[in-house]
Amino acid sequence: MKVAVLLFENFETLDVFGPVEILGRLPDFFQVGYYSQDGGVQCSTQGVKILTEKMDQLVSQIDILLIPGGLGTRKEINNIKLISAIQQLAYLSTYVLTVCTGSALLAQSTLLDGMSATSNKRAFDWVKSVRPEVKWKEKARWTVDGKYYTSSGISAGMDMTLGFISDILDEAIADRVAFEMEYEWNNNPDHDVFSRKKPSV
Amino acid sequence: MKVAVLLFENFETLDVFGPVEILGRLPDFFQVGYYSQDGGVQCSTQGVKILTEKMDQLVSQIDILLIPGGLGTRKEINNIKLISAIQQLAYLSTYVLTVCTGSALLAQSTLLDGMSATSNKRAFDWVKSVRPEVKWKEKARWTVDGKYYTSSGISAGMDMTLGFISDILDEAIADRVAFEMEYEWNNNPDHDVFSRKKPSV
Repeated sequence: MKVAVLLFENFETLDVFGPVEILGRLPDFFQVGYYSQDGGVQCSTQGVKILTEKMDQLVSQIDILLIPGGLGTRKEINNIKLISAIQQLAYLSTYVLTVCTGSALLAQSTLLDGMSATSNKRAFDWVKSVRPEVKWKEKARWTVDGKYYTSSGISAGMDMTLGFISDILDEAIADRVAFEMEYEWNNNPDHDVFSRKKPSV
Repeated sequence: MKVAVLLFENFETLDVFGPVEILGRLPDFFQVGYYSQDGGVQCSTQGVKILTEKMDQLVSQIDILLIPGGLGTRKEINNIKLISAIQQLAYLSTYVLTVCTGSALLAQSTLLDGMSATSNKRAFDWVKSVRPEVKWKEKARWTVDGKYYTSSGISAGMDMTLGFISDILDEAIADRVAFEMEYEWNNNPDHDVFSRKKPSV
């Protein structure tokens, strides 16, 4: 399955490379490519620069669309050309995975209307305001509704990606990947200690 | 503090970008750069391509050296030029952090002789064989001995990096970063469920 990771300036580093670590451990199943609206280098908020291809080149060639979040989503939410492209690509994809505020970009495309979704709990009010037509679920590590997988903030993308692998391939494969990563996978999408939790400082 | 991430072909993706996500959230404290023996693009086993500068350019300019692990360490362990450079850079650095089998590269430089260290539990026999003079600790999420921080496999690098921040800055800062990442930080370096644990498949 061909996975297209959609990047933009100020994406969040781990939103991308947590899932990429996991999918990249299963090269017989997943091939990952990086794309952006105009191609070229895109830089994460944490300074990681990734070379991307132009999105136009991938239409109808992808099976899985992965949309990260990050500070850049606050700007891209008003980028009509990008949201329109997301709508088209998500519609054509077999599966769509979002991490953190990536769900706001997908929601803006209207494709999540009436469906369950979640997002980063620190940005939840903003995400809800973007598209109130979505059934936003505050207490969820990740959600699945049809072909749409949405995760909570940043590190939740890893739990969701393992859950995705468990759903479409095999739970034993997801367990093995988590084990090889020495990652204590939170495999319960309803276990979310970060909903409504306030920081200690 | 200037952080130099040492890359090589077939580094492990999350070994790098877990810690980078965390350090990158504290730009007032840490500036991250990427280096390799000869400079140029280095590719992770999971296909992530990162542009690096040549290592020679950073001598005496770094505060923290971060050495990831990955399949590439099996080759680089015999790269005398790289190991010699690691020895010099690690000696000059204020702190040295290794993730996964990155500790094997550091151990090969002899700087860990007589010190406590850990590594990926699936590669532990190989790592021990590289340098038996190190006090290899099998049950440890991460270890601290003087200026040397070594972590267990892949995702353990995130727990160690948060522990490092807790040690040199403030525990409340580490807690806040983990909270913002919605990451359930394993903050006990002795809590290691992956030592001697066998995969379920």
